[in-house]
Amino acid sequence: MKQERAARTRETLVRAAAEAFAQEGFVTASVASIAKRAGVSAGGLHFHFGSKPLLAEVVECRAAEAVRMITFGRLDRCAEALQLMVDSTHDLVALLAGDPVVRAGFGLCADTARVSVADPRKLWRLWTEEVFRLAEQERQLACGVSACAAAHAVVAATVGFEVLGAAEPEWVSREAVTTFWELLLPRFAAPEALGRLDAGGSQPVRRSGF
Amino acid sequence: MKQERAARTRETLVRAAAEAFAQEGFVTASVASIAKRAGVSAGGLHFHFGSKPLLAEVVECRAAEAVRMITFGRLDRCAEALQLMVDSTHDLVALLAGDPVVRAGFGLCADTARVSVADPRKLWRLWTEEVFRLAEQERQLACGVSACAAAHAVVAATVGFEVLGAAEPEWVSREAVTTFWELLLPRFAAPEALGRLDAGGSQPVRRSGF
Repeated sequence: MKQERAARTRETLVRAAAEAFAQEGFVTASVASIAKRAGVSAGGLHFHFGSKPLLAEVVECRAAEAVRMITFGRLDRCAEALQLMVDSTHDLVALLAGDPVVRAGFGLCADTARVSVADPRKLWRLWTEEVFRLAEQERQLACGVSACAAAHAVVAATVGFEVLGAAEPEWVSREAVTTFWELLLPRFAAPEALGRLDAGGSQPVRRSGF
Repeated sequence: MKQERAARTRETLVRAAAEAFAQEGFVTASVASIAKRAGVSAGGLHFHFGSKPLLAEVVECRAAEAVRMITFGRLDRCAEALQLMVDSTHDLVALLAGDPVVRAGFGLCADTARVSVADPRKLWRLWTEEVFRLAEQERQLACGVSACAAAHAVVAATVGFEVLGAAEPEWVSREAVTTFWELLLPRFAAPEALGRLDAGGSQPVRRSGF
C-alpha cells in the first residue's frame, strides 16, 4: 500500500511538473509551484525526484517513451512504410494534443537552460528518416523524390505542428495532419502505391474492428 | 556626436540582449549579463531601454521589421506569387542564419514567460497565407492543391527550420530551402507555371547583375 501511494504521488508530481513547465517554462517553474500544483510538500518533491532538473528529465523520458511506442514500437506491423509514416504522425499529434506530459517533454528538449537527455524530438527525426529509407527500399516513393529530402520536410513540418500547437490546438488536430498528408502523399508516393494509402490514418479503422 | 554615441550604445545593447536571450533564454538572461556583454553598466541599460522586457520587445520588433522587409515589402515586385514565396523563404532562412537579432526575436515570440507583441512568426504566417491566395488567384497552383493547405504546410515547415536551426545551422541553409522547394514545387505549381520557377531563389541572380 505504501508503495502504491508512493507511485501515485510520483505520478501526480510528474503531471504537475509537466503542466508547470509547459505553462511557466522550465526556468520560471519553481519547486514550490510544482509541489503546490501536486498538493505535495516541497520536501516530498525532493524525496521523490531529488530536484527540478531531475524531474524535468523524467518528463522528457516519458515523452521519449511515448514516441518510441508509436514509432519503432510498431515497425513489426505489416503496414507499408508510407502508411506507417502517416499513422505515426497522427499518433504523435494526438499525443501532443492530449497528453500534457508528452507536450511538456517536447518543449523541454528545446529549452536552452538545460541539456536534453532523452530528446523525443530527435527520436522522432530518426524514425522519420528510417521510415522514408524503408519506403525507398520498398519502391513506394515517386520517381525523383529522395528519401532524405522527404524526411527533412516532414521533420520540419511536424516540429512546426508541435511548436505552433503549444499555443493553437488546431495545429495538432487530426484534421490538420490529414490535410497535410492529402497534400503531400500525391508528391511522395509512387502512383501504384498512392491508391492504397490513407491520409487520415489506417488505425482508427483497425481499432474499431473493421 | 552625443546622439550618435547613444545610438551606437543602443545598437550594442540590442545585439548583446539578442545573444543573451538566444543563448541563455529570456528568463535566465540577466540585466547584468546583457550589460556586461555590451560593455555598458546596468544603469546604462536601464537609461536606454528601461527594463529587460522592454529590451526584449525591441529585439522582437527588429525581427518583425526584418520579416516585413523580405515579405510585404516586396509585394510590388513583378515576380509570380510562387516565386515570391520561394524567394522570401530563402531570405527568411538567411536572416535566421546570419542575424542574431532576428534569430532571438523569433525565439522570444515563443517564450511562455512573456507576451509577444510584434510576433515575427505570425507576420510570416500572414505573408505565407497571402502569397498562396495570390498564387491561387493567378492560377499558379496545381489542380487539387488548396492555397490554405499549402500555406499551412509551408508555415509548419518554416517554423520547424527556425526552431531546429537554432541548434543545427544546416536547417537554415540555402541548400535546405532549395531541397525543400525542389521537393514541393512539383506538387504545388500548375504544370505551366513549374518551368518558370526556381527553387534556388531568383534573387542571387538578380543581385549579381545578370
